[in-house]
Amino acid sequence: MIVSSVLEVRRRLDSIRREGKSIALVPTMGALHAGHARLISSAREQSDCVVVSIFVNPLQFGPNEDYQRYPRPMEKDVELCNALGVELIFAPEVGDMYSGPQLSFVEVPRLTQNLCGAFRPGHFRGVATVVLKLFNIIQPGSAFFGEKDYQQLCVIRRMVQDFNLALTIVPVPTFREPDGLALSSRNVYLNPDQRAIAPVLFRALNLAKELVDAGERNSEKVKAEPLRLLQSASGVRVEYFEIVDDEVQPVATISGPVRIASAIWIGKTRLIDNVPAR
Amino acid sequence: MIVSSVLEVRRRLDSIRREGKSIALVPTMGALHAGHARLISSAREQSDCVVVSIFVNPLQFGPNEDYQRYPRPMEKDVELCNALGVELIFAPEVGDMYSGPQLSFVEVPRLTQNLCGAFRPGHFRGVATVVLKLFNIIQPGSAFFGEKDYQQLCVIRRMVQDFNLALTIVPVPTFREPDGLALSSRNVYLNPDQRAIAPVLFRALNLAKELVDAGERNSEKVKAEPLRLLQSASGVRVEYFEIVDDEVQPVATISGPVRIASAIWIGKTRLIDNVPAR
Repeated sequence: MIVSSVLEVRRRLDSIRREGKSIALVPTMGALHAGHARLISSAREQSDCVVVSIFVNPLQFGPNEDYQRYPRPMEKDVELCNALGVELIFAPEVGDMYSGPQLSFVEVPRLTQNLCGAFRPGHFRGVATVVLKLFNIIQPGSAFFGEKDYQQLCVIRRMVQDFNLALTIVPVPTFREPDGLALSSRNVYLNPDQRAIAPVLFRALNLAKELVDAGERNSEKVKAEPLRLLQSASGVRVEYFEIVDDEVQPVATISGPVRIASAIWIGKTRLIDNVPAR
Repeated sequence: MIVSSVLEVRRRLDSIRREGKSIALVPTMGALHAGHARLISSAREQSDCVVVSIFVNPLQFGPNEDYQRYPRPMEKDVELCNALGVELIFAPEVGDMYSGPQLSFVEVPRLTQNLCGAFRPGHFRGVATVVLKLFNIIQPGSAFFGEKDYQQLCVIRRMVQDFNLALTIVPVPTFREPDGLALSSRNVYLNPDQRAIAPVLFRALNLAKELVDAGERNSEKVKAEPLRLLQSASGVRVEYFEIVDDEVQPVATISGPVRIASAIWIGKTRLIDNVPAR
């Protein structure tokens, strides 16, 4: 069942809540792939009613980003949701989600100053704000987020904790192609040559992870060889390659669990990925 | 009944909610006076269970403001709440409301750039953030705010709308002393001489209102005489005297409903007040 109205989705979920059913939310921008399917399946296993929101959120795109171009294969998305037993697809119009000018925002400055946040000003403000709106509309007991968007996961998890939201954030490991490329709705932008090169990102991250696992604690030393690997790949431009803690702060010396995260451009397509280490 | 633990208040309210009772929240910083009593009585009339929160929120005080000095007459506050039939007083410790460093904030830039917001940087960020936390902990169906803090009311109302929060904000008119002084927890800072001068603020606001009601539409002309009245009062320093719309933007020409709002200092005490016009 697809619902587009904010009022209507509230009404339907109120009655589901009254039946005592647990509600799980999987927030997406659509263009669903096997990574989303894994999020939905995890939600399905752990709750009575799964809501998938499909909303390409203009607030999280910069003026020169791919808001217009972002894929919107609604029919295919609905088919996948139905096949996976999703109870309710919430696919609001922009004018219903933002019925007046949005003047209130969520800001998590410390967690958004590095990695993607440094290169996409306003992006995480847009993400956190729309996710808070979705949480308040759907009022789920749990919400599922992919680890591929690691900084996003950190921001949302922190927002939930800091704002005392009564729900559980469930992280789901990244789903990968056989050659290691993390699934992303933006992979469709890659031409065959670019697609063949793209797995270098995961290889570089794993190379760094191996160095950490082998005992290297100096971040600069960990990053050197993976960076060379990326920079030698044809048509690849490295945006960042960082080792951060759970407040998304770069660490000079690795003393606890860290995340190795990177963003690269292949032509006009931006890819991100990350792996845990230690 | 007084509850100080966030977990415990959630637990108690969950069981009240399961009984199908409506919950109203009156957020306060304590030092309750007849203005608060009116908020509580309004909440009492309109709901099954009234929760009064008492929390002097460090996040909304500037480094040179009166956080330490702010009055905290807890016993008297509890007596008043009991007399008014409050079901639950939520009086958390600072370390429970901010159990880790608060890294997530609510920002409403447009509504907080003028009036008090211009003179108290970070104040409304602190207010909106703690109020959102209280809303998420208490999950009330309605929350009561005094019109005396007009900009605060605008910010909270806008936050609720923009974040799709499922609750109603109920504004309650300002309660005044017989001579017109708006009740405030900070009035206790005034010595007898200052107290005698303080009603000039309401007189100046009313003078402006009379000019608007008589047909004057030019804000500068409306403000001139009230400003002279304030500036001629002994020991008074005017911080601002403005005519604003419901997005708290100063208007040059009065074409719809406006709010006339002012902040003055009498010695080391800051007083604010406002009146509607048109």
